Amino acid sequence: MAEIINVSAIAKTEKEKLKSRILTYKAEGKPVPTLATVLVGEDPGSVYYLEMQKKNLEALGGTMLKITLAEDTSEEDLLSMIGELNGDDKVHGIMVLFPLPKHINEERVAESISKDKDVDGVNPINIGLLASTSGGVAPCTPSSVVEILKNIHGELKGKHAVIIGRSNIVGKPLIQLLLREHMTVTVCHSRTSNLPMMARSGEILISAMGRPLMIDEKYVSEGATVIDVGTSELDGKIVGDCDLESVLQKAAYATKVPGGVGTLTTTILIRTLLDLYDESFRK
Amino acid sequence: MAEIINVSAIAKTEKEKLKSRILTYKAEGKPVPTLATVLVGEDPGSVYYLEMQKKNLEALGGTMLKITLAEDTSEEDLLSMIGELNGDDKVHGIMVLFPLPKHINEERVAESISKDKDVDGVNPINIGLLASTSGGVAPCTPSSVVEILKNIHGELKGKHAVIIGRSNIVGKPLIQLLLREHMTVTVCHSRTSNLPMMARSGEILISAMGRPLMIDEKYVSEGATVIDVGTSELDGKIVGDCDLESVLQKAAYATKVPGGVGTLTTTILIRTLLDLYDESFRK
Repeated sequence: MAEIINVSAIAKTEKEKLKSRILTYKAEGKPVPTLATVLVGEDPGSVYYLEMQKKNLEALGGTMLKITLAEDTSEEDLLSMIGELNGDDKVHGIMVLFPLPKHINEERVAESISKDKDVDGVNPINIGLLASTSGGVAPCTPSSVVEILKNIHGELKGKHAVIIGRSNIVGKPLIQLLLREHMTVTVCHSRTSNLPMMARSGEILISAMGRPLMIDEKYVSEGATVIDVGTSELDGKIVGDCDLESVLQKAAYATKVPGGVGTLTTTILIRTLLDLYDESFRK
Repeated sequence: MAEIINVSAIAKTEKEKLKSRILTYKAEGKPVPTLATVLVGEDPGSVYYLEMQKKNLEALGGTMLKITLAEDTSEEDLLSMIGELNGDDKVHGIMVLFPLPKHINEERVAESISKDKDVDGVNPINIGLLASTSGGVAPCTPSSVVEILKNIHGELKGKHAVIIGRSNIVGKPLIQLLLREHMTVTVCHSRTSNLPMMARSGEILISAMGRPLMIDEKYVSEGATVIDVGTSELDGKIVGDCDLESVLQKAAYATKVPGGVGTLTTTILIRTLLDLYDESFRK
């Protein structure tokens, strides 16, 4: 029987754990975990996202320091603001919202965020450590995918996952996270020959392309788990990469969009914040 | 008809190109490309490797600055030596030979090598840039594999490669290099279920396990290209991961060991040195 994965329930359990971690910090007289966010300009999507992230974080007992800079802020001023946050003991995580205005070099900005506060894992040092050690910081979306897979399957070792998409925020860090779970990993993308056949070779299929409703039952092996990381707008509605009804003809488990992976990411971002927080007291 | 890939011929062609690049530098009055190598202790394998690398580099018109430190050199002294080389304008590439004695933290050493001189791609910044941009530095062995594949196939786009092994010096950087070529990539390892079947799913198979003669025709699809990156000692002889005779019953092309990938790596290291050299004059 095909089952739609209840990601909200996974998020709820995770939130309880985070809440009790923060209560413990308070009982120990430690400071309130604080996430600094930096938005350049007023992109409505980013504004909405930050409001939601702030509410989530405060509900768990943390705080958010929201910094908004004018659209025409110079790169120099942005870098100096990040430098201040890097040096501020009361800030445990820093998130700069991308994309940035065109006059600002995103690579330089990513490199400027202290690796110890880089909650989104954008600093190349963290990407490198993620790829070569047991450390580093992974972005919240691929981490959420792993959390969902662990919930469904328990042990992932030896299973074969096919990822469609090789972006820096989902596909590529996901390769590293799945290898850490000792999974066999195949990475497909727009240039892959015979994509449906490749996709069917996996017991687990993760689609992160942003191609609305492209994945149907032809891409899914019998009994597979399908995680949909795509979000696109189609006829005014938010849809995923998967045609869910068709996918469920073959899959044993699948996530929906909306109400799937995205339901967990803001919570996992807070978990990363608390991990960096813990680490800062170990030093 | 199965063919053993003539890697020496590929190395020869590559050497000619490097030689003429260095001649051009000289004609332009630029300094001699210089690789600094740092060996702590006297491991005979490393001593032999450095002698060979020196001969190769000098034959092409470059120079090597060979630094040997005592086995009991402190981490602090090693880091300060690397700091000097980082600041020395006459040095264009730095290679520290691993493994280091146990009292020295290899991660700290890797991080200390200037990313602009990190000829072996060990600094996590370079690993991160390799995984997230078109920049970064790849170690010479995976780069050699790509060079061989390009020689055999020309265009690699859309082809499916299976890598066996996920080490930091071969398997993991190779994922990134093959994705840059727009290949579909599968990574297998010791925990992979049904390894022969997974291996057979690729048109290209790259084995980098170090398990002597483990790969036979059961792992190879008809007409595949097989690249053997393994080197092990068996009964006093150097052998690869592949039982070549068996592999050639299925493969169209295969490399041998010795006389395969290893024949090209020292040349590709020099190419990386020259790339860093060029980059240093662009800044």
